[in-house]
Amino acid sequence: MLTTLNHYGETFLKMKLDLRRLDKPIYVTSPLLPDIKDFISQIAKIYNSRWLTNMGENHNNFEIKLQHTLKVEHTSVFNNGTIALLVALKALNLPPNSEVITTPFTFAATAHCIVWNNLKPVFCDIEPQTMCIDADKIEALINHKTSAILGVHVYGFPCNVKKIEEIAKKYTLKVIYDAAHAFSSEIDNIGIGNFGDISMFSFHATKLFNSIEGGCLTYADENLTAKIYNLRNFGIQNEELVEDIGINGKMNEFQAVFGLLNLDLFEKEKIARSKVKNIYLEEISKTKGIKIPKAADNVTHSLQYFPIIIENHYKLSRNELYNEFKKFNIFTRKYFYPICSDYICYKNLPSSNKENLPIANELKNRVLCLPFYGSLEPNTIKMITKIINYFSA
Amino acid sequence: MLTTLNHYGETFLKMKLDLRRLDKPIYVTSPLLPDIKDFISQIAKIYNSRWLTNMGENHNNFEIKLQHTLKVEHTSVFNNGTIALLVALKALNLPPNSEVITTPFTFAATAHCIVWNNLKPVFCDIEPQTMCIDADKIEALINHKTSAILGVHVYGFPCNVKKIEEIAKKYTLKVIYDAAHAFSSEIDNIGIGNFGDISMFSFHATKLFNSIEGGCLTYADENLTAKIYNLRNFGIQNEELVEDIGINGKMNEFQAVFGLLNLDLFEKEKIARSKVKNIYLEEISKTKGIKIPKAADNVTHSLQYFPIIIENHYKLSRNELYNEFKKFNIFTRKYFYPICSDYICYKNLPSSNKENLPIANELKNRVLCLPFYGSLEPNTIKMITKIINYFSA
Repeated sequence: MLTTLNHYGETFLKMKLDLRRLDKPIYVTSPLLPDIKDFISQIAKIYNSRWLTNMGENHNNFEIKLQHTLKVEHTSVFNNGTIALLVALKALNLPPNSEVITTPFTFAATAHCIVWNNLKPVFCDIEPQTMCIDADKIEALINHKTSAILGVHVYGFPCNVKKIEEIAKKYTLKVIYDAAHAFSSEIDNIGIGNFGDISMFSFHATKLFNSIEGGCLTYADENLTAKIYNLRNFGIQNEELVEDIGINGKMNEFQAVFGLLNLDLFEKEKIARSKVKNIYLEEISKTKGIKIPKAADNVTHSLQYFPIIIENHYKLSRNELYNEFKKFNIFTRKYFYPICSDYICYKNLPSSNKENLPIANELKNRVLCLPFYGSLEPNTIKMITKIINYFSA
Repeated sequence: MLTTLNHYGETFLKMKLDLRRLDKPIYVTSPLLPDIKDFISQIAKIYNSRWLTNMGENHNNFEIKLQHTLKVEHTSVFNNGTIALLVALKALNLPPNSEVITTPFTFAATAHCIVWNNLKPVFCDIEPQTMCIDADKIEALINHKTSAILGVHVYGFPCNVKKIEEIAKKYTLKVIYDAAHAFSSEIDNIGIGNFGDISMFSFHATKLFNSIEGGCLTYADENLTAKIYNLRNFGIQNEELVEDIGINGKMNEFQAVFGLLNLDLFEKEKIARSKVKNIYLEEISKTKGIKIPKAADNVTHSLQYFPIIIENHYKLSRNELYNEFKKFNIFTRKYFYPICSDYICYKNLPSSNKENLPIANELKNRVLCLPFYGSLEPNTIKMITKIINYFSA
């Protein structure tokens, strides 16, 4: 097939499909923006207060409102999700050099935050369905140095939180969830941020819900509130006392108002994304060689990403399909490729061995995230599905 | 004296000085804000581009403009100065667990960034004049584990960069400067960011120049450019290669435009601060028991802070004077008190021993930063100096 394409070149495909290259590039996502008038009127208030950062009024209101939206006990907002995760691990006082079992099928920040905390990542393989850490493979990796499990609700699909909780109890391990993709995901109507000891959400511009950059931690244990508050602000307890080795994780007032305003809009964005999803499903759910991961029935999905799996019998490899899209000015994303166990800084870890991670290593070459956001035009979606269907097995 | 005050209470002082408590609190600083119309018009452009973060156009322009302002070879901007310093230390590849000689007379971030990098802070005493690390005391702390010197240009006064450079050459050590206070400080018209291997500037709202939160690194070695760029963005080299254990240090577009606009204003703010400084000097430079640290003749000062030293023969202790100001709704700052070697997380280090740090331990109880910003009213300044002079030795 590829030979045919190379032979005829781009023109062949474009003529055959009656499609032309888009003038403007289409990316995987497009950020949700509050009405500019609303944003400006909030900025005027910040100017009047002259309080630009350091736990200001908007920052505090944002935390309260998030608590309701995410249906959690406590929230602490941060300048970005990475610093939030860094502080989450620090707040749990894990023994130095102890091991944290995690997934390689995630963004770089997950594993990096473990190492910045002077802890060792141990990679566990993933489930083929949800692409989250495979809870059935965790126990084999536990030893006397293990201190925690760091799961990732990848694309917004929840980990097997029940099984992970059982294991954590059995071995007295802490559980942290990287919920960067899972804003508003729920299991049986319970906010995803209620599972584990601490969860981290990202509010980066590429996320369903964003505060330009930003993130938060959610947790149930009231004792963590002061600990996290202080660690986020250099470990300062009060003007005259510094206890911990903290960092600057403060969210400023401009990001906080941006987030506050977007909190009123993200549900509408989710409805719009549902429509996009439905068109995708209509057009490609029966396409041979394409598998579409689905959330379990008791799961409310965040609709963060729309990943598809390119199966072996599809006419193009994932990389070939990615390149076809590029010719039309459409930028899908090989997300996650590479996986963390491929990184130069991690590939020599014992757990990075490919035999330990067969599913992750298989799926990293098969998964492709399609453009997915509320304002994506039906015509563009259909163009995308037409290209996919053309190479159907 | 204190007994007299306690006896007569607040009323006595207020009557005696004919001063009344201010309705609005006066803090040590007030943030520089760009014209709101200019800011809004830049926000509209960001909305149109839909590029909110990740090395956007404003981010890149900000780096170029900063390069000129700071008269340096290279700049990399960050979401805040702490993350910038964290990355600076990481970028220099210092051996794990090696020792970094630094000053305890600084903000928490300086020492914390050393520890986050899995390095050990070794505290060196300070000079009584500049309150910067005492270069003459550094050599005694060097051993085979020493890898770097981290000086702080405290309040905007430069360290003894010449002597530090000599020591670094002699022992093959890296030199990093925490220039958080020293935006626009110069030595013999050379931008302060040109000394050492890397310098870090903070653009926090409390600084002379601010981008809400923010910071940058400056350096001469072209080889550091890609290293720092990647570390700031999770260690990602390109879409398919992750080499280093990086972090999220990205500055977003909103902060970048705020910074860009403030770059046009900070010189004017400095002129206004000079006037404030001159009133202070007129009123209190001859006050007995008050010492005002001065920059050397070849130094251009950043005018970041206006610290005074409360000498032994002044009628109040520093803490008592601080409390007197509070009664008038004026919030001076005991900056730096506590010093890093007092923190719970550092007090047990061998170098935290008070005998090792006599000057720092003396000055932490004597220094007081007065309110200092361009829009501080002459009447308020005179109220402050009147209170100071009342307790003259």
